Amino acid sequence: MEDRINIGHGDGGKLTQDLIKEVFLDKFKNAVLAKLEDSAVLEIEGKKIAFTTDSYTLSPIFIPGGDIGKLAITGTINDLAVMGAKPLFLSCAFVIEEGFETKALKKIVDSMQNEAEKAGVALVTGDTKVVEKGSADKIFINTSGIGIIISSVAKDRIEIGDKILINGTIGDHGACVLAQRNKFDLNLKTDCASLHGLIENMLKTSSNIKFMRDPTRGGIAAILNEIIQDKDFGILVDEDKLPIKDEVMAFCEILGFDPLQLANEGKVIAVVDREDAPKVLKVMKEHPLGRDAEIIGEIIDEPRVLLKTKIGTHRIIDMPLGIQLPRIC
Amino acid sequence: MEDRINIGHGDGGKLTQDLIKEVFLDKFKNAVLAKLEDSAVLEIEGKKIAFTTDSYTLSPIFIPGGDIGKLAITGTINDLAVMGAKPLFLSCAFVIEEGFETKALKKIVDSMQNEAEKAGVALVTGDTKVVEKGSADKIFINTSGIGIIISSVAKDRIEIGDKILINGTIGDHGACVLAQRNKFDLNLKTDCASLHGLIENMLKTSSNIKFMRDPTRGGIAAILNEIIQDKDFGILVDEDKLPIKDEVMAFCEILGFDPLQLANEGKVIAVVDREDAPKVLKVMKEHPLGRDAEIIGEIIDEPRVLLKTKIGTHRIIDMPLGIQLPRIC
Repeated sequence: MEDRINIGHGDGGKLTQDLIKEVFLDKFKNAVLAKLEDSAVLEIEGKKIAFTTDSYTLSPIFIPGGDIGKLAITGTINDLAVMGAKPLFLSCAFVIEEGFETKALKKIVDSMQNEAEKAGVALVTGDTKVVEKGSADKIFINTSGIGIIISSVAKDRIEIGDKILINGTIGDHGACVLAQRNKFDLNLKTDCASLHGLIENMLKTSSNIKFMRDPTRGGIAAILNEIIQDKDFGILVDEDKLPIKDEVMAFCEILGFDPLQLANEGKVIAVVDREDAPKVLKVMKEHPLGRDAEIIGEIIDEPRVLLKTKIGTHRIIDMPLGIQLPRIC
Repeated sequence: MEDRINIGHGDGGKLTQDLIKEVFLDKFKNAVLAKLEDSAVLEIEGKKIAFTTDSYTLSPIFIPGGDIGKLAITGTINDLAVMGAKPLFLSCAFVIEEGFETKALKKIVDSMQNEAEKAGVALVTGDTKVVEKGSADKIFINTSGIGIIISSVAKDRIEIGDKILINGTIGDHGACVLAQRNKFDLNLKTDCASLHGLIENMLKTSSNIKFMRDPTRGGIAAILNEIIQDKDFGILVDEDKLPIKDEVMAFCEILGFDPLQLANEGKVIAVVDREDAPKVLKVMKEHPLGRDAEIIGEIIDEPRVLLKTKIGTHRIIDMPLGIQLPRIC
């Protein structure tokens, strides 16, 4: 591994995986962590609990459609929900740069509380550290979360022919953050939203949802590659079916970004049994956060992620490598 | 409240309390958070669970006797233990500055794993973010923890005559960090240690341990004041009984610090029924982390924290106000 940590080690792609494997997994050897799921699934006196953590370093801290506070709630709720858990309790820990405006802090706390209340989760414990000016950039927020497992999502049941579903347009969050950072005046909003309501409806509809993940850093390219990692099957994605907003597509074309690699903060990718896929899709479309849901692809027997382009050719979707986009979440 | 966050808002004293009350509690209204304990005590399907979070911003990151990694484990374990919980699972989330040495990261991860293993807790979920050079100072670590409540510690049972116990010398951690920062060559080591074993022994010995807290930021001055907050009783501390290392005393005298306000990372303050205090003290002294344990004071009917000095006078120990010592933990 490299001698020094670089931005790519935090982008959710190949370098992040290397870092996790070489530095963390090797030391923190235990079966739960080794699964590298979005939440750990624990058993405490016979109860199955999901436990997750995320630090949020979003920059800029306020963006159209959200802010670092809202994101810190939705992101952690989603990490619990995709594991089949009902989110119950959150912690929040702030690292604040000396001189940060109290007004901005109050605005962030406001949106955390609004989102938590809407989602029916309680912020039950917290911590605040203040560091000297220049030792942090404005504010970093960690939220950890606990949920109770209501449905077990078993990746090992995935088989050829299973369908890949997504609840809406891709790349909205990543495009929004990057446009803000570069001061592009495009009408881009983050999709940041708590998905547990939508996911609960999906889980009620089918007991054959085999995998769910929210495609944040690294975008759907990273998640699709994670699904097939160390497996002998692959995924074929139909570009025609990929929901992408025109503004996001335009943004990507101007700047040369791949929308498949852009972060989402209100999206879930689900692998669903082929028979059940249509009814899961229907239920998704009935939910406000799933109106643009689509079946975007399926599990195939060739062990890689392939995109069937609009003109009919196939291209390989690789695990993102060194996207160099820090502080997207 | 002030327009901008200042270093004092993070020092664990009066300003931190103001920030928590005015910015957080006012918004995040819920009964669990409002207790402002070291851990939240939650009920999940009939099981009592403790849940806590802390972000660690220690500077320098390596100090005699420990480092930011060890501290991130012991600190969170202790926050669970003082609530009467057996620590079970920890999360860890890293915010790393671009360019941070992989070797240093590995060393930190090493000491996290060593401490977790020794303490019998598992690191089950994690997160890594990398921010641009200059956007964070080296590394910040958040650990959140889950434990199962084995004994309920009920602050509301405190009464006049109860004894105040501590398991050893005060101010070691704070003095060590400050000496390192100022490059003083004094033989000072952090006391950073996981206290759950000691605390379990104490709880087994007496069902009349009414309160426990680890006196970190703000030192024992902050904790003693927290105990009597909004109460009609006070605390009398006997200076003669306060265990302080000679080196720490010398350090404080040279630099004008009050050892009562210096952070500890391997100490627990307990309020114990007067009858049970001697046997709890005995059990503490039998544990490697309690050899220097003492009964340092008692609950009195005058509602403030008083220090009976070595020369027999009384001075008030106030809640620390603006100690201006960031990144002690």
